Amino acid sequence: MKNTFGTALTLTLYGESHGPAVGAVLDGLPPGLPVDEASIARRLARRRPSGPDATARREPDPFQLLSGVFRGHTTGTPLCINIPNTDTRSADYLPDRPRPSHADYAAHVKYCGHQDYRGGGHFSGRLTAPIVAAGAILLDALAARGVRIGTHILRCGGVPDRPFAAPPRDLANDLDALDAAPFPALSPDAPAQMTAAILAAKADRDSVGGVTQTAILGLPPGLGEPWFDSLESLLAHALFSLGGIKGIEFGDGFALADLRGSQANDPLCTDGRAVVTTTNHAGGINGGLSNGMPILFQCAVKPTATIPRPQPTIDLRTLQNATIAAAGRHDPAIVRRLPPCIDALTALVIADLLFQRPPSPTLP
Amino acid sequence: MKNTFGTALTLTLYGESHGPAVGAVLDGLPPGLPVDEASIARRLARRRPSGPDATARREPDPFQLLSGVFRGHTTGTPLCINIPNTDTRSADYLPDRPRPSHADYAAHVKYCGHQDYRGGGHFSGRLTAPIVAAGAILLDALAARGVRIGTHILRCGGVPDRPFAAPPRDLANDLDALDAAPFPALSPDAPAQMTAAILAAKADRDSVGGVTQTAILGLPPGLGEPWFDSLESLLAHALFSLGGIKGIEFGDGFALADLRGSQANDPLCTDGRAVVTTTNHAGGINGGLSNGMPILFQCAVKPTATIPRPQPTIDLRTLQNATIAAAGRHDPAIVRRLPPCIDALTALVIADLLFQRPPSPTLP
Amino acid sequence: MKNTFGTALTLTLYGESHGPAVGAVLDGLPPGLPVDEASIARRLARRRPSGPDATARREPDPFQLLSGVFRGHTTGTPLCINIPNTDTRSADYLPDRPRPSHADYAAHVKYCGHQDYRGGGHFSGRLTAPIVAAGAILLDALAARGVRIGTHILRCGGVPDRPFAAPPRDLANDLDALDAAPFPALSPDAPAQMTAAILAAKADRDSVGGVTQTAILGLPPGLGEPWFDSLESLLAHALFSLGGIKGIEFGDGFALADLRGSQANDPLCTDGRAVVTTTNHAGGINGGLSNGMPILFQCAVKPTATIPRPQPTIDLRTLQNATIAAAGRHDPAIVRRLPPCIDALTALVIADLLFQRPPSPTLP
Amino acid sequence: MKNTFGTALTLTLYGESHGPAVGAVLDGLPPGLPVDEASIARRLARRRPSGPDATARREPDPFQLLSGVFRGHTTGTPLCINIPNTDTRSADYLPDRPRPSHADYAAHVKYCGHQDYRGGGHFSGRLTAPIVAAGAILLDALAARGVRIGTHILRCGGVPDRPFAAPPRDLANDLDALDAAPFPALSPDAPAQMTAAILAAKADRDSVGGVTQTAILGLPPGLGEPWFDSLESLLAHALFSLGGIKGIEFGDGFALADLRGSQANDPLCTDGRAVVTTTNHAGGINGGLSNGMPILFQCAVKPTATIPRPQPTIDLRTLQNATIAAAGRHDPAIVRRLPPCIDALTALVIADLLFQRPPSPTLP
Repeated sequence: MKNTFGTALTLTLYGESHGPAVGAVLDGLPPGLPVDEASIARRLARRRPSGPDATARREPDPFQLLSGVFRGHTTGTPLCINIPNTDTRSADYLPDRPRPSHADYAAHVKYCGHQDYRGGGHFSGRLTAPIVAAGAILLDALAARGVRIGTHILRCGGVPDRPFAAPPRDLANDLDALDAAPFPALSPDAPAQMTAAILAAKADRDSVGGVTQTAILGLPPGLGEPWFDSLESLLAHALFSLGGIKGIEFGDGFALADLRGSQANDPLCTDGRAVVTTTNHAGGINGGLSNGMPILFQCAVKPTATIPRPQPTIDLRTLQNATIAAAGRHDPAIVRRLPPCIDALTALVIADLLFQRPPSPTLP
Repeated sequence: MKNTFGTALTLTLYGESHGPAVGAVLDGLPPGLPVDEASIARRLARRRPSGPDATARREPDPFQLLSGVFRGHTTGTPLCINIPNTDTRSADYLPDRPRPSHADYAAHVKYCGHQDYRGGGHFSGRLTAPIVAAGAILLDALAARGVRIGTHILRCGGVPDRPFAAPPRDLANDLDALDAAPFPALSPDAPAQMTAAILAAKADRDSVGGVTQTAILGLPPGLGEPWFDSLESLLAHALFSLGGIKGIEFGDGFALADLRGSQANDPLCTDGRAVVTTTNHAGGINGGLSNGMPILFQCAVKPTATIPRPQPTIDLRTLQNATIAAAGRHDPAIVRRLPPCIDALTALVIADLLFQRPPSPTLP
Repeated sequence: MKNTFGTALTLTLYGESHGPAVGAVLDGLPPGLPVDEASIARRLARRRPSGPDATARREPDPFQLLSGVFRGHTTGTPLCINIPNTDTRSADYLPDRPRPSHADYAAHVKYCGHQDYRGGGHFSGRLTAPIVAAGAILLDALAARGVRIGTHILRCGGVPDRPFAAPPRDLANDLDALDAAPFPALSPDAPAQMTAAILAAKADRDSVGGVTQTAILGLPPGLGEPWFDSLESLLAHALFSLGGIKGIEFGDGFALADLRGSQANDPLCTDGRAVVTTTNHAGGINGGLSNGMPILFQCAVKPTATIPRPQPTIDLRTLQNATIAAAGRHDPAIVRRLPPCIDALTALVIADLLFQRPPSPTLP
Repeated sequence: MKNTFGTALTLTLYGESHGPAVGAVLDGLPPGLPVDEASIARRLARRRPSGPDATARREPDPFQLLSGVFRGHTTGTPLCINIPNTDTRSADYLPDRPRPSHADYAAHVKYCGHQDYRGGGHFSGRLTAPIVAAGAILLDALAARGVRIGTHILRCGGVPDRPFAAPPRDLANDLDALDAAPFPALSPDAPAQMTAAILAAKADRDSVGGVTQTAILGLPPGLGEPWFDSLESLLAHALFSLGGIKGIEFGDGFALADLRGSQANDPLCTDGRAVVTTTNHAGGINGGLSNGMPILFQCAVKPTATIPRPQPTIDLRTLQNATIAAAGRHDPAIVRRLPPCIDALTALVIADLLFQRPPSPTLP
């Protein structure tokens, strides 16, 4: 379905980086959810580049809710979020020299040269703005049902953060701390050290990658479907839409490959009130279904592909070898901006499973 | 869509481990593809447990093509592959004691106790048999168009295999070697050493995990869609349907997180005939689209959850703590059986993108 | 989606008239629904040709439930119904002479000659058997929730039946009567007169068409979606899959075109307990949503295309004009067999809207 | 999928009659199609009410192409058409008194009172403006491939038009004439007589219904799918999204019910160059597939539900009986405005089948 994702709750994305606008249509929302514009603005601000480590492009993100909201609540009909593009500098992009490890060349072939190449066009990270705006509505609605989602940077430019706490109560505290923190990290020293690593790369006209970790707290057991709509399948599908993500692992992920079953299995027990597991190597998912424990996953984020250094490429007109040095404004660490995007897409998957419109309405 | 996957080409899965049959319906095939029953049988045999390291359950997999095939070719209408279950021992399963790190508990909650719990029911690895059978038809059809897919075990029980060769010509030789090899590994010593590691775990009444590596050779650039149907999204969606897979990374994956952009980017150049990249850190995918280089990805496979050792669990009737020691026949290393399943699901994603039915037919 | 229909509840169809089997996979069922094999057999018997007015082909329809049923109830996983083909006479079909007004010629072009042409192949009315079997499970489940569906022949071979009674209570009696009646008509004289008209056509080596009327009783208001998933859209989509149906109208349908708004509108009022309309010209649907009144629609069914008379056609090998006279066994009135098929597809649409799997399961 | 329709080519609709905007996202377009803004404006003007027989609401429809267009051509990425709402008079609508035979009451129940009730909200005919705009791009693209679509009013307020000419060459002339005509009718007298009938109803503070007839010329044989994606299923699904349509019939439709097979069948023959049928009772579709003949279908359009006469209804607050007399500006004959909407939705279905993005792109 290309630019539409979801089953009962769908998000349809549109827009190009240097066109009139970017936006999204969110359909399948239950009626009567509060729509808090301040909350949307707050999450958009978290996604926006800021500080010395970020791109110089200013994106005020003056979003418009074109439909689906009435008297501050969702109507249950499609909600369109439109974000006009304002501050664009198209001359920065060389149409004929594709940037290495960017979509430029593959998009040129796919669209037979008709794509809007300016700033990556439809492939631009700018398209994550409407994703984050839509996610804000969903995250608020999930929180009202006791489901919380948060993402921190587990590693960036060689600097580690501590992982999420395992006990659900401590994990809830971690999520509280992330909500309040200006930098998405849990250790007190991580923000300064990661920022330093990013600035060092920027000074070298280079970029850095990283790893994120996400937690979902408060899911009931049994969410997800066997086989093709496993919870891992749905989350991975949504998250790999972010161009910088090149790997996803759930629970202990790749480390599980080197364990034995007796080490990797999570014993079941009852704490008197609920069935829990004493460890959570599986990241809260068994056989594609949530098991009631916190969902945990990590994403590998590659370093920003667009760097100011000269790099070998080809000239699409002459098909000769050539060189490109990016002149545009780019983040030296896209991992720094991804946590709100990951939260939003995670919320979309979870809300799609949890918020299905009540099937047999009756007069209130 | 639960048990159906794909857009133009769809696979619908049905069956339980100890019910009458497992099977799949493959719809959207172009008419006129050869259907080679020997090829299906050969791939099913590769998936089937064998040797001293495998489960003792014998599954002769006498598949039936119930529809969609006429005179040895696809008709273009739905192709149903049905595989009756024969050798089942239901008494091996304790309905009231869910196996740790298996779908048992979550499925019990999800289906309100109505699921067929015998042998994992619909969550059983036995459901991969129709996936492999369907994949055999697709792999043959892709090969006829110059697209080849192969998977080896890159690591198992602590034993490494060498990775795929990088140059496409050498990679083609690796795929040839895998086709002929009884054990899915590239290094000469890996089969014996991995088998020894698996048998050692079995002797300990335990199990081992591993990592697989998959290559797709011969794809044109431009396959995949921006955002939600990125090639990574589609492949990850399909592959995370296999319960044992807990992580997927493309190209250098998690290792990219620790590189700088200048190290991770793949420079573009022309070799006189085609546009290529001089390295392939991205695993052949940029911005969600194939770039013409080989596609490479790794999957983390957890150790088999079902082990003969006693493990803590709960009793679903009494909701008291209890113990389970699996008595059934289980592979001590599911990674050993996954390569044909991964190949089949990969073929499904690629064929869905490549083989769309010609849109405007004309009289032949 | 070709041979799959539905959103939360999907039916996937497979099979050819003269291949090994026909069947369907029903996915998305709630767990715990009773599966009554006698009820399935009874509905299949209603679809089966019988009596002097029907085709001579005997189809005992020995259906197999291959998956998704455990201890007499649905498991919540895909339910596969397989019906082996037994009594086939392939020599009756001339592969090179397409029957006028049948799918033969268009299918030949579409599938480039690879289709299984025997007996219409995948286009055969035999494929309605698994539809009826799947529908039986759904109709029983709907009835348990107070939703009833029934279809009678409103007109056949020039013979009229009386329409459904308008008051819901009388309509319920009509549905009771239809359940018990061997011939799907409401007037006492209609069965004999319609049978006579069918036999007269048969004696002329010809066929007749007709009109059916369907009622859905017990739906709450608000089912359906605005625009593309209007209740009319979904029902029409499902029903036009039956090859013989060439028209559908809801409520007064085409007769509304000649009324004024003041005549066609259904005034709203309250009967003290519920909001009702004093007339039902709209057939229970406004703006694509159910309004709480009975849903009523009529289908136009063309006369059976396959008739024993010689008819002009072409020879596909020589592309010269030719003649065909059908030698196979065919019903002179497919309208006679359609009511159970229409009920089943109607149940599929309604159950898809009503029975969506509970979204947030909790431990029972 | 609620407000999204299509498989490879999808249209997603958003907006409310009195909200900020209405619009649509069209995804799956091939890259490089010309986008002619004058053509879009021309089709929007045809949909817009005008003349003494129409609503007094002026809708200048200043559409914005927010994405997916670059240098006058489609890029191949989602194309968003946004149409701001300007001339709205919300006070005309009584929120607590649902209009008979309108979506008001059912929507109130479905959305638990959260729907935007002003002017019908999301159910308003105003939502057809973005449908018509999207359709304009598709109709131009189809015409460039030799596929033409046109709709006229076959009957309105008791006044008949002549049906489309049967011979394809004459039908092409009819489509030419419709393109040029200010009123969508074929007979010279129909426009004046139909307008008089509409004005007579308006003078009576009432409304009239009608029947439309649509032709598709130039389709190759074999388009459509067996069973659930039959051409009839897809067209009916799309067209029943228009609230005023209450019936659809293909070819001779309901009249076929009274014919015998020997009368209804369309004999096949060859005219030396192509296979044709000597009659076209089936409306160009057999077994759900196009057969190469012109596609013909009729839609029954009910009279406009909103009329100025007082009508019985209920008060949603008190649940007591009440009266409503519409004060808003409404067309006394929605059939007058439907032909461009029907053309657009027909183009969406046909383009979805014909214009699928080329599956294996190669460097141009």
